[in-house]
Amino acid sequence: MTTVIRNATVLPCTPGMPVIEGGHVAIEAGRIAALGAGAPPELAGVEAIDAGGDIVMPGMVNPHCHMPMTLFRGLGEDVDDRLFRYVLPMERKFVTPEMVRVGTALAAWESIAAGVTTIADMYYFEAEVGRVIDRAGLRGVVGQTLADFAPPDHRDMDEGFALVEALADEFAGHPRVRASIAPHAPYSTDIPVMARVADWAAGHPDVPVQIHLAEMNTEMDWAERTHGCRPVEVVDRAGLLRDGLIAAHCLYLDEAEIARLAETGVRVAHNARSNAKAGRGIAPVAALRAAGVPVGIATDGPMSGNTLDLFSQFGPVSMFAKLLGHSRKPMPAVDVIAMATREGAEVLGMVDEIGTLEVGKAADLIRISTAAPRMQPIYDIYATLVFAAMPDDVRDVMVAGKWLMRDREVLTLERAQVLRDAGQIAARFRAEMVEIDRARGKDAAQGDQT
Amino acid sequence: MTTVIRNATVLPCTPGMPVIEGGHVAIEAGRIAALGAGAPPELAGVEAIDAGGDIVMPGMVNPHCHMPMTLFRGLGEDVDDRLFRYVLPMERKFVTPEMVRVGTALAAWESIAAGVTTIADMYYFEAEVGRVIDRAGLRGVVGQTLADFAPPDHRDMDEGFALVEALADEFAGHPRVRASIAPHAPYSTDIPVMARVADWAAGHPDVPVQIHLAEMNTEMDWAERTHGCRPVEVVDRAGLLRDGLIAAHCLYLDEAEIARLAETGVRVAHNARSNAKAGRGIAPVAALRAAGVPVGIATDGPMSGNTLDLFSQFGPVSMFAKLLGHSRKPMPAVDVIAMATREGAEVLGMVDEIGTLEVGKAADLIRISTAAPRMQPIYDIYATLVFAAMPDDVRDVMVAGKWLMRDREVLTLERAQVLRDAGQIAARFRAEMVEIDRARGKDAAQGDQT
Repeated sequence: MTTVIRNATVLPCTPGMPVIEGGHVAIEAGRIAALGAGAPPELAGVEAIDAGGDIVMPGMVNPHCHMPMTLFRGLGEDVDDRLFRYVLPMERKFVTPEMVRVGTALAAWESIAAGVTTIADMYYFEAEVGRVIDRAGLRGVVGQTLADFAPPDHRDMDEGFALVEALADEFAGHPRVRASIAPHAPYSTDIPVMARVADWAAGHPDVPVQIHLAEMNTEMDWAERTHGCRPVEVVDRAGLLRDGLIAAHCLYLDEAEIARLAETGVRVAHNARSNAKAGRGIAPVAALRAAGVPVGIATDGPMSGNTLDLFSQFGPVSMFAKLLGHSRKPMPAVDVIAMATREGAEVLGMVDEIGTLEVGKAADLIRISTAAPRMQPIYDIYATLVFAAMPDDVRDVMVAGKWLMRDREVLTLERAQVLRDAGQIAARFRAEMVEIDRARGKDAAQGDQT
Repeated sequence: MTTVIRNATVLPCTPGMPVIEGGHVAIEAGRIAALGAGAPPELAGVEAIDAGGDIVMPGMVNPHCHMPMTLFRGLGEDVDDRLFRYVLPMERKFVTPEMVRVGTALAAWESIAAGVTTIADMYYFEAEVGRVIDRAGLRGVVGQTLADFAPPDHRDMDEGFALVEALADEFAGHPRVRASIAPHAPYSTDIPVMARVADWAAGHPDVPVQIHLAEMNTEMDWAERTHGCRPVEVVDRAGLLRDGLIAAHCLYLDEAEIARLAETGVRVAHNARSNAKAGRGIAPVAALRAAGVPVGIATDGPMSGNTLDLFSQFGPVSMFAKLLGHSRKPMPAVDVIAMATREGAEVLGMVDEIGTLEVGKAADLIRISTAAPRMQPIYDIYATLVFAAMPDDVRDVMVAGKWLMRDREVLTLERAQVLRDAGQIAARFRAEMVEIDRARGKDAAQGDQT
């Protein structure tokens, strides 16, 4: 079966970022078979779609997420110590394969509905994440987290590596789901663990490595105290600054560190909204990109960034660059969309397969309506996407030639069931928050917040 | 006819920001007749609405806008000199009563659809803005702009004041539309004009004054060069720092100026997204509010801020405060919603009438669905509103007891007509942009952008 979409504003997101008005895209056997201006080719067995001028562009790539944490979304918002007060104790108590399945399903529903077609995840019981991504029809890089703080699914690194091995075995050769190994951060997977990861990864070239890096003041302090240097140097000493490393955050980098990331082939997942909401700072995106480091636009986990659409990130990504540059010019809208598509695919090492619309690439594409009055008129389609489009404008979503959403109906997950399951777990979390606050004493709790 | 909404999550937005689960609101003769927890009172002639747990809260207040500029939305985005290159020449050529009507209708449609029920506007041919706001059923403060740079509707200040007089006469006693006088900015309405405005305003206590203040580096330079002081001092010398002055932007303020604004009763419209997109900076919102200056959340004109919903502002307002405070705690979500409602009404001097849901106040209210998966689960309803809600979640909008939108259908403006009219004018603008770029030479134009 061939699908032909015609009468579309096609944004292939190839270098130069062309705009093809009244264009067409043809999809055959899960790949893009033709693409261009004007009338589509005559093809047999065709599902013909008139896009009515809507945008057709590559599905968006979210290179850093913690999908199961949808269940923590908005919990303890604005509370400075919420990580130690709520999150870590609740993760130890409540993170089970079931919780991971339920939270990932909610995240997958939301991602599809927002036009995200590829997600890189880092969490626990990650095989469950991979299975839900598979079932939802999405494309994913699923990273089994390793950490030394007694996380929910491994007591020590031998158990952690066993989970990684099993994950890699389960998804070996999967067409859409790729296993990944994810040492949590320099301070929670110190040099011996990171060195072991580097060794393991060298023997598994198809398993990308993800890490949180240079994200927090406390991390900078830890590195200085423990190793007399900065976190990038700690990772470098462990041999983990390597081609294809997906480093999330990277807020605190100096010039030499940026050069070192570029030289070693590290890629960066930029979490603008999450970092700003935490009051942590703004990553040096312009300097990274100028040095040749690919930078993708990521949501971070929904406890930190709340929503899993990239539209909510576009404003911050653009505004922060313009504020830092004291001008309207830095980070033009066209660059933001390039980062959300092609550059995100580069970050994940998948740009030969996805990230642009080109003949032969996987048919991962989305259709976006521009009918909402808030999007009109249109002088620059990229400015419209960055500053006026919202997730609900995404109408159709296809991954590998299969429709995951048509006319805003997600076809691969049952919305009511997803919400019911999530609601049941959220009720347990609410009760636990009450317990935690009661145990700490109401006055103490209020004191923390003022 | 009485309307009773029951089974709602009522957010009255009164001080303390209570949350009434399973609450009701009753509306009679355009005002709130009852409000509280549990079952509603028995009332005759009732339109009964089961809100199904949806949020019911005050309509949002947008205290600074240039509504007709929807027609310029996204034009010249990322071009540093777009004001002088495109906007001012095109305004002189194209701003007519018809353009103002068409642009305002598009803005009114979008505002209603996003749950904004009161807008303060500053533009030209402002009587047209007032008439469209009246027809749309919105509440508005319509500010006739005065400026010395040959604006489209007055050649000199005598003509400008004549427009103000006519506007004040036309809307005297109008239940929803209030005339306003709007000297453009210190640099474009120097001391003699601002002093004349102050005199005029003293004799017209029902006509609020609006001004752009401390917005740009060039404004700071102008004040220093021309008067040897800063813009706030220039306005003060003109006698215009007065109770009720609505000052937009206020980016560049020192401690003494903040104290002076507080002392004189000035209120501030904060345009977070617009200011950041222009690379200008971040207003000292925390210091202003700590000094007792009410600060509302505004969109600025759609050429600067693109969309006219306040949801798009919530992220920036919150994130900027947290970034400046280096912590997750500043500007909690509950404060953002207070600013979008009650504090916005204070900025416009209308808090006795609108801004909270209280018995006796005008029935300006909105209903927001929390059904979207991206909003689930909910631990803190204010965090959900600030970080996950979007304009399309607004279902119903009422102003003065009259429905302006039901189930996302705007009832007072014809959507297709609004878009058709806007499209015709946008086509003229596009042709003019081509002309301007051609006249300047393509190479020169590209040079400006790099």
